[in-house]
Amino acid sequence: MMEQTGAFDPVPKEEILRRIDELKRRMTEGQIDFAVIFQNVDRFYFTGTMQKGMVVIPLNGEPIVFVEKDIERAGEECPLATTPIKSDKEIKDILEEKGVLQGVAGFEFDVLPVSLFERLRKVTGVHRYADASACIKEVRAVKSAFELDQMRKSADILGLVFEKARQIMREGAREIDIDAELTAEGRKLGHQGFLRMRGLNQEMMTITVTSGLTAAMICCADVPIGGAGVTPALPQGSSLKRIGKDVPVLIDYGGGYNGYITDETRAFVTGKLDDVFRKPYEAAREIIADMLNHAKAGMDCTELFVRSHRIAKSAGLEDNFMGYGKGKVAFIGHGLGLEINELPVITGKHHRVLKEGMVFAFEPKFILPGLGAIGMEIDVMVTTSGVERLTSDPIDLIYF
Amino acid sequence: MMEQTGAFDPVPKEEILRRIDELKRRMTEGQIDFAVIFQNVDRFYFTGTMQKGMVVIPLNGEPIVFVEKDIERAGEECPLATTPIKSDKEIKDILEEKGVLQGVAGFEFDVLPVSLFERLRKVTGVHRYADASACIKEVRAVKSAFELDQMRKSADILGLVFEKARQIMREGAREIDIDAELTAEGRKLGHQGFLRMRGLNQEMMTITVTSGLTAAMICCADVPIGGAGVTPALPQGSSLKRIGKDVPVLIDYGGGYNGYITDETRAFVTGKLDDVFRKPYEAAREIIADMLNHAKAGMDCTELFVRSHRIAKSAGLEDNFMGYGKGKVAFIGHGLGLEINELPVITGKHHRVLKEGMVFAFEPKFILPGLGAIGMEIDVMVTTSGVERLTSDPIDLIYF
Repeated sequence: MMEQTGAFDPVPKEEILRRIDELKRRMTEGQIDFAVIFQNVDRFYFTGTMQKGMVVIPLNGEPIVFVEKDIERAGEECPLATTPIKSDKEIKDILEEKGVLQGVAGFEFDVLPVSLFERLRKVTGVHRYADASACIKEVRAVKSAFELDQMRKSADILGLVFEKARQIMREGAREIDIDAELTAEGRKLGHQGFLRMRGLNQEMMTITVTSGLTAAMICCADVPIGGAGVTPALPQGSSLKRIGKDVPVLIDYGGGYNGYITDETRAFVTGKLDDVFRKPYEAAREIIADMLNHAKAGMDCTELFVRSHRIAKSAGLEDNFMGYGKGKVAFIGHGLGLEINELPVITGKHHRVLKEGMVFAFEPKFILPGLGAIGMEIDVMVTTSGVERLTSDPIDLIYF
Repeated sequence: MMEQTGAFDPVPKEEILRRIDELKRRMTEGQIDFAVIFQNVDRFYFTGTMQKGMVVIPLNGEPIVFVEKDIERAGEECPLATTPIKSDKEIKDILEEKGVLQGVAGFEFDVLPVSLFERLRKVTGVHRYADASACIKEVRAVKSAFELDQMRKSADILGLVFEKARQIMREGAREIDIDAELTAEGRKLGHQGFLRMRGLNQEMMTITVTSGLTAAMICCADVPIGGAGVTPALPQGSSLKRIGKDVPVLIDYGGGYNGYITDETRAFVTGKLDDVFRKPYEAAREIIADMLNHAKAGMDCTELFVRSHRIAKSAGLEDNFMGYGKGKVAFIGHGLGLEINELPVITGKHHRVLKEGMVFAFEPKFILPGLGAIGMEIDVMVTTSGVERLTSDPIDLIYF
């Protein structure tokens, strides 16, 4: 059935085992005796399946992959043994029988709602608990060769969508027209359907097209450019505004292949780029070039941010860098993987050392209040000698 | 700016005040002295804006609408006074100054993650607390005239998308091809971009196209028909399967206008409908007709479910009704509004009386394992004398 309905790479068993070992190492450091994993993305990461259920990973012993439904699908996708259950009420007895309920349980406190946590505590019979979310996020921050391959396939979709954008961009089209056409193009290329962002209220559009003014609007989300959206009830993304001459049109698109998300931005213009955008455009180019020349495993993320900030400042564009006024964000890059807000965050605020296998989006953007914005965004993977882009197209301003 | 970027109806002030009054009535019953509302949809519901911040609604006194960003946009959208803050660390002092921190605080425990709750407790200085989510969900279950108007506009998008489906359905197309084209059509009609579903792991595609077998696959989500999806990392929605002859193709689409979601399903076929689907199709039609004839304010939802179940049973289709085996779900309908899983749930399991202004999707569907599925889904609003459909097109099987 699967070959008929999808085309994807299953997560290899040795990969799953490596991830679990790495989690156990972090759990030991965090004094957690067993992890109770409920969120769908985390479960997929540690088991290869997202079928309904729960996973318990004890420090000493095999992981227990509880599956409510569909057990057959889970069996095809997950290389570990699965434990079918009719309801979560069976979980406690099974855990007790296996002697798992000793010590401190780790839960995903960053995503697990209070009432669901209370329920899970009851169905697992847990008494002592701690937050396991940092452990999980640290493990997920470093991508394996398998994951990098998935991310490249996600970037392939993204690259083809930007290629299509070059063909369909037109003056007078509304932002949502371009949005609709490119989203459809991506979906036909096998895009998974939507992008995931971790945490309550964290919502992400697959694509955001902004043109001039709409790129300069302050967004409720923690992004430098979020778009106006079409309603206060979903106040981000493309709007009904028509694309005009001489101002930058930004397309921020996310690929999605086998769960893995890529996230890049290209700038387009028709006519002549208004002079006011020229200097910020050159500064964004310079920041990208500087990052590509300097970033590598072992570097502290704050150093990357500080270098970028310095370039923006010497161009006299400090106020416009990564937002203006209340719209300013504190980062220039963010980790990517199964979710769009993974580690590392490239910010001046928190120290974190880049490691081989980390993947991040890097997005120098300048916002000119009342006028628009310009900049670009590329995804890179970290190696010991530098970084490698996930896409290969030029990031120059595209004239249409 | 707004008229250029979006086309929507702002939430009227008297509407907001009525919602807050209704919440206060429920809070009194639930012995909650002030509600702390953080989730974006709930905030939008009680303030008209989704800009970043938090809302505190005391039983005695005016609501305090804290806004981090964008305060100007919030001011345009929210008819109440707003309180600008630079960070949530200012909240406690303001609440103390206003004398709000007396008694029991109500939080959204059904969606608020544990670590975020701990943070909110700290920034608000709350000591005693309770779960306010039931209060909020009960208020939101009954739609006002304004909301029904938004839902009709959402249904208009949906109706036009199904009209387009009649034109583009074709043998040999992949499910995702139809998905992509119809999603694009909806977006160009002003669709908000995605559909919201309340709770962790609750994910919803804007559209799901299933053809034959893929409609019969058991889905990890709590839906009778979820589709195969294109990857185990997002195991629902349309797949790469090609549309064939003589088996039903189901299109389940959600409109989205100004936050309000509609959710309907139509069945299509090319060639001749395989005889095995004929009886279930007729039974689904009969169940719809029965519901339209009998549902009205004052009726218990369990009665609606039991009536439907009885029709399925007398057709000899009890085993196939609303899923087969482990794929069976316990409901035939669900409330709709700003989220796709609102109250009421039309199930045999929990009593709930239909009230004037409730809106629900009603979806008799029959799953034939290894073959496919057939059925339909319509949205209705409850009146004192019956129910009214939100769309007006015929729900007969559509030949293409």
